[in-house]
Amino acid sequence: MKHNFGAGPGILPHEVLKQAAAAVVDFNGIGLSILEISHRSPEFEAVLDEAVKLVKELLEVPEGYSVLFLQGGASTQFAMVPYNLLAGNAKAAYVESGVWANKALKEAKYFGQVDVIATSKESNFTYIPKDYEVPADAAYLHLTSNNTIYGTQLHHFPKSPIPVVCDMSSDIFSRTINVADFGLIYAGAQKNMGPAGTTLVIVKDELLGKVDRKIPSMLDYKIQIDNGSMYNTPPVFAIYVSMLTLAWVKSKGGVAAIQKENEAKAKVLYGEIERNPLFKPVCATEDRSNMNVCFVMENAELEKPFLKLCDERGIIGIKGHRSVGGFRASIYNALSINSVYALVEVMQEFAEKNK
Amino acid sequence: MKHNFGAGPGILPHEVLKQAAAAVVDFNGIGLSILEISHRSPEFEAVLDEAVKLVKELLEVPEGYSVLFLQGGASTQFAMVPYNLLAGNAKAAYVESGVWANKALKEAKYFGQVDVIATSKESNFTYIPKDYEVPADAAYLHLTSNNTIYGTQLHHFPKSPIPVVCDMSSDIFSRTINVADFGLIYAGAQKNMGPAGTTLVIVKDELLGKVDRKIPSMLDYKIQIDNGSMYNTPPVFAIYVSMLTLAWVKSKGGVAAIQKENEAKAKVLYGEIERNPLFKPVCATEDRSNMNVCFVMENAELEKPFLKLCDERGIIGIKGHRSVGGFRASIYNALSINSVYALVEVMQEFAEKNK
Repeated sequence: MKHNFGAGPGILPHEVLKQAAAAVVDFNGIGLSILEISHRSPEFEAVLDEAVKLVKELLEVPEGYSVLFLQGGASTQFAMVPYNLLAGNAKAAYVESGVWANKALKEAKYFGQVDVIATSKESNFTYIPKDYEVPADAAYLHLTSNNTIYGTQLHHFPKSPIPVVCDMSSDIFSRTINVADFGLIYAGAQKNMGPAGTTLVIVKDELLGKVDRKIPSMLDYKIQIDNGSMYNTPPVFAIYVSMLTLAWVKSKGGVAAIQKENEAKAKVLYGEIERNPLFKPVCATEDRSNMNVCFVMENAELEKPFLKLCDERGIIGIKGHRSVGGFRASIYNALSINSVYALVEVMQEFAEKNK
Repeated sequence: MKHNFGAGPGILPHEVLKQAAAAVVDFNGIGLSILEISHRSPEFEAVLDEAVKLVKELLEVPEGYSVLFLQGGASTQFAMVPYNLLAGNAKAAYVESGVWANKALKEAKYFGQVDVIATSKESNFTYIPKDYEVPADAAYLHLTSNNTIYGTQLHHFPKSPIPVVCDMSSDIFSRTINVADFGLIYAGAQKNMGPAGTTLVIVKDELLGKVDRKIPSMLDYKIQIDNGSMYNTPPVFAIYVSMLTLAWVKSKGGVAAIQKENEAKAKVLYGEIERNPLFKPVCATEDRSNMNVCFVMENAELEKPFLKLCDERGIIGIKGHRSVGGFRASIYNALSINSVYALVEVMQEFAEKNK
């Protein structure tokens, strides 16, 4: 038994993996693999329709928004957002809450002016910048809802007079959100939604078509919308597994129910980090992520032996990102609370040994 | 037993599907799915390294070329090629041999001047244009090696004084090529190389870095090369299945051996189309594709009953593209010659019934 705390591509539900494996041999009993059917077949069109429907249902997406399954990851969105929304003579406002936010704003600079209205870079991103005013004359405000590397999460989205664009790659479907508060949401699938290889985009239709620039077809949201995410061959399998994962979220009671579980998991783990004399948290308490729990040791020399014990106990993927050090336990939707208990047990056992 | 003649995503080898299904549950016995491991794990790095190595080995890629596994399909390459290779004050030469070639040249127009040096549009692309001179002052010559929709294939690549860029989406790894004759080769995986969701690019390094324009990171070949196709999270599973498929090609004796089989399959099928009084070929004889065999009926009223009989015999995916009509049997690498015999048998049975 492995407890997969990896930061991503992350853990997927066991039921989903079993269904996906069966479909790789024979999809729905049609005698063909999901990997070798046409994307224009009624079988795949039903998969894509269902995936879009589940997104709309689980997030209660209001009218006037389109749901897309694209390729290229959030990193492609870093460019696609300004390509479509930022005119050459306009500016966009970015909050720099981590390295990914920084990469997003760098790409935007190729297309227009970028106003970094707040940053927590000076503290190595251990908190979410909050003290800023959103410029009313910018085309959009760009936020990152969860910072995978640092373990911080935006628990309260700011009021904004301009459309909010949000990278939700590492916490989408982990908690309820009010889609109407956003102009555009994007997320690489590989944390809570499915395997690597597809990217979800939810975009308010009325924001599009306002920029004069010529946009390559694959990067043009309008073209992707007009073609129902099938301007070209979509990533069939990644969308299929995402559909299965979203159906699993629904079967668990939906996003609100998953959120409760996620909060319970986080509470158990942060509780142990605070209680256990060997460990300490990294981030500002009010900004702690319920997805990526970052912590370090009071005595750094104990890190290697602790990792070794974790490995022996089947607890994997908890080494912290090199820019933060220490540990990072990613507790995505599919990770059971029993895996959190397993980690806590190892932390306690290790503390007992190192009194 | 199904005989999958679908145009793509197309048939994959049965052994590959079995291995892929097993890895979705437990990858190489590590107790985790291929869908939930980090792309930075040694396990996945070994997969990507092996995939790149197999490409180099199977196509005998010379020194000075880089091999990339990207996302976004050939359609993204339609824009990425001129983004990287076509300066705003320069021109590129395109041969229009089908709808995909047309889409490629349309994207190039966003970046520079496009010179369509030859087209077979006037005959609905039933032949490969050959009568042209390659302008020595263009940045590159763009070709499409196989036209999936029309069933034509470039059997002799033209001599070119400028770098040749070639879309090989539907015939890569189906026949030997001399990579040194090309500046850049690209191919969506979903015909002969793997499932939908990754795109192979083989690029001559010395062509890059010569255009002044700012290029979004994900679309910059140099950035992708510098990061070994891992600038961001790659499409792990699509690359894994591509690696398995390439290993299968190697196990069959490599590309030259596969080419012989493909030629044998095509010979059997074209032979029957010519012999059978009910059917006739669509394309110029010398340009017929060994991948997509397009044919129509002398009497169009028999098309539906023939499709019905095919369906009853497990022969699927042979309906022609709407822009050509009739039939298209795609006989990609993984399709056994026995499936071709099965189709020929149905054609003969149907002719017998409709004498």
